[in-house]
Amino acid sequence: MVTIDDIKAAADRIRDVAVRTPLLPAGWADPDRPLWIKPESLQAIGAFKVRGAFNALARLDEPVRARGVVTYSSGNHAQAVAFAAAAFGVPAHVVMPEETPDIKIEATRGYGAEVVICGPGQREIVAAQVVKRTGGVLVPPFDHPDVIAGQGTIGLEIAHDLPDVENVLVPVSGGGLAAGVGTAIKALCPNARVYGVEPELAADTVEGLRLGHRVDWSIEDRNRTIADGLRSQPSDLTFAHLQQVLDGMITVTEDEIRDAVRQLAYQARLVAEPSGATPLAAYLKQATPPGRTVVVISGGNIEPPMLREILAG
Amino acid sequence: MVTIDDIKAAADRIRDVAVRTPLLPAGWADPDRPLWIKPESLQAIGAFKVRGAFNALARLDEPVRARGVVTYSSGNHAQAVAFAAAAFGVPAHVVMPEETPDIKIEATRGYGAEVVICGPGQREIVAAQVVKRTGGVLVPPFDHPDVIAGQGTIGLEIAHDLPDVENVLVPVSGGGLAAGVGTAIKALCPNARVYGVEPELAADTVEGLRLGHRVDWSIEDRNRTIADGLRSQPSDLTFAHLQQVLDGMITVTEDEIRDAVRQLAYQARLVAEPSGATPLAAYLKQATPPGRTVVVISGGNIEPPMLREILAG
Repeated sequence: MVTIDDIKAAADRIRDVAVRTPLLPAGWADPDRPLWIKPESLQAIGAFKVRGAFNALARLDEPVRARGVVTYSSGNHAQAVAFAAAAFGVPAHVVMPEETPDIKIEATRGYGAEVVICGPGQREIVAAQVVKRTGGVLVPPFDHPDVIAGQGTIGLEIAHDLPDVENVLVPVSGGGLAAGVGTAIKALCPNARVYGVEPELAADTVEGLRLGHRVDWSIEDRNRTIADGLRSQPSDLTFAHLQQVLDGMITVTEDEIRDAVRQLAYQARLVAEPSGATPLAAYLKQATPPGRTVVVISGGNIEPPMLREILAG
Repeated sequence: MVTIDDIKAAADRIRDVAVRTPLLPAGWADPDRPLWIKPESLQAIGAFKVRGAFNALARLDEPVRARGVVTYSSGNHAQAVAFAAAAFGVPAHVVMPEETPDIKIEATRGYGAEVVICGPGQREIVAAQVVKRTGGVLVPPFDHPDVIAGQGTIGLEIAHDLPDVENVLVPVSGGGLAAGVGTAIKALCPNARVYGVEPELAADTVEGLRLGHRVDWSIEDRNRTIADGLRSQPSDLTFAHLQQVLDGMITVTEDEIRDAVRQLAYQARLVAEPSGATPLAAYLKQATPPGRTVVVISGGNIEPPMLREILAG
């Protein structure tokens, strides 16, 4: 299991490449539930994923890293690995499912990575083929301790900036973010509650945690949600962390997600992608006890037509 | 004249109320002109003005401050004074011209201030009447050393985060922001160039600096620009600072301003008001020598219909 020391070590490694995002006080929120926003959408790649990817690459031995890296991702982790590989000057191959928004494919190519498009549910298989062909190292999007530790640096920063935080809300997809943030918060702010947030239409982790074991939802079911970054499912490793560090799960509807994207733009002056807005959606429906609350806005990579459509809603 | 020591003292005063905004690296920008964004739009009131207003109130003797404060503003300074007055628990009266966007009037009232609407060009006269009636202290939007020093803390942060900055671009309206930021940058990064940015349609300072003295543009002329925060003109005090600290002025067209608002939303994931986007507009037209450039995005208070209209553009 990832420890707070792993997360502190990751923080030292990523210091020069990750933006130290501030906690933004949201004066427009319910005074009984004072709200702060952690805007990971402001990372250079538009999402928190740079933290885990860079930490994972930094941990590789130099001759191993020089062979190049391979990953699969519906988007933000792809850009993160491409960005980190460029920072280290090593090649990157990124397998992306065909339903990935164009903006994320183009951004990944923009960092110099080679993109391999695959069919739905095929990305892990195709990535394994690319590893075999290129001799590169697989940097998975969440199923790795170094990735979890990197994402956990967000929790470290929250604990530093708001030591008396009472609720922390994070989106759950593959679970790396929630595992890392939860580990950091539980270690440093033991009285704080940590909640995972999922769309109703991709709520496999809600069901899994209730049953005490991972469950599989079909990729067709998970693809129904507008939150394209939340269509993955935890691995054994991340699920074990979630069982240990989460105080609960909250589901949000598609309309609630859209409303949260609007509120972030109009009230917080932030462009968020639907996945990134889910913690605010959970906050707005008052699904947690009152108290000082931090929502982690995980990313802001939304295609302009979708942003315009949601803002018009 | 405001000194770097005044600005450092202001930084200590405002530490607990102003967000320490990060410099956001803009990987999508021209590699020959590496770009960082200083997102003052993320302050609680949505604009940098909280720095100057809070510093000015903090400098008042307690019995004086207790009589309440009065100001006039087309918007963001209004919210800043209302916010700062609420923080100190003293009453605030704010004179706002009738063309002020509703979002700014409502936000000012939201902080508990009493709003007095006035006709075009009447705000200073009406504010003087309110001062006489209430016995409060006038906190002008820019014509005061404590306000300039507060805004200058932005320059202090830029110099700390990017000591080898080469170009700093700031909007110019009443000139308090440019005066303060320029003073800090010139003191701490003597090799950096500081540019003021104005809309072509409200370019009184461009003309004034060329002629060597302040010039008056009619309020009707200045009201033509979409950048409603840049319709003021420098005072003797701010103009004297601008003459000393600016290396040049850049004008931008209305279309360039709109394009910059779009780029900030789509590339930088930030909602900016037109005034706040003008430094990026100046950057995009390559109006400065190449080099490491910081654009100060001064505010994000834009009404939803205007944001939607510009994004659709």
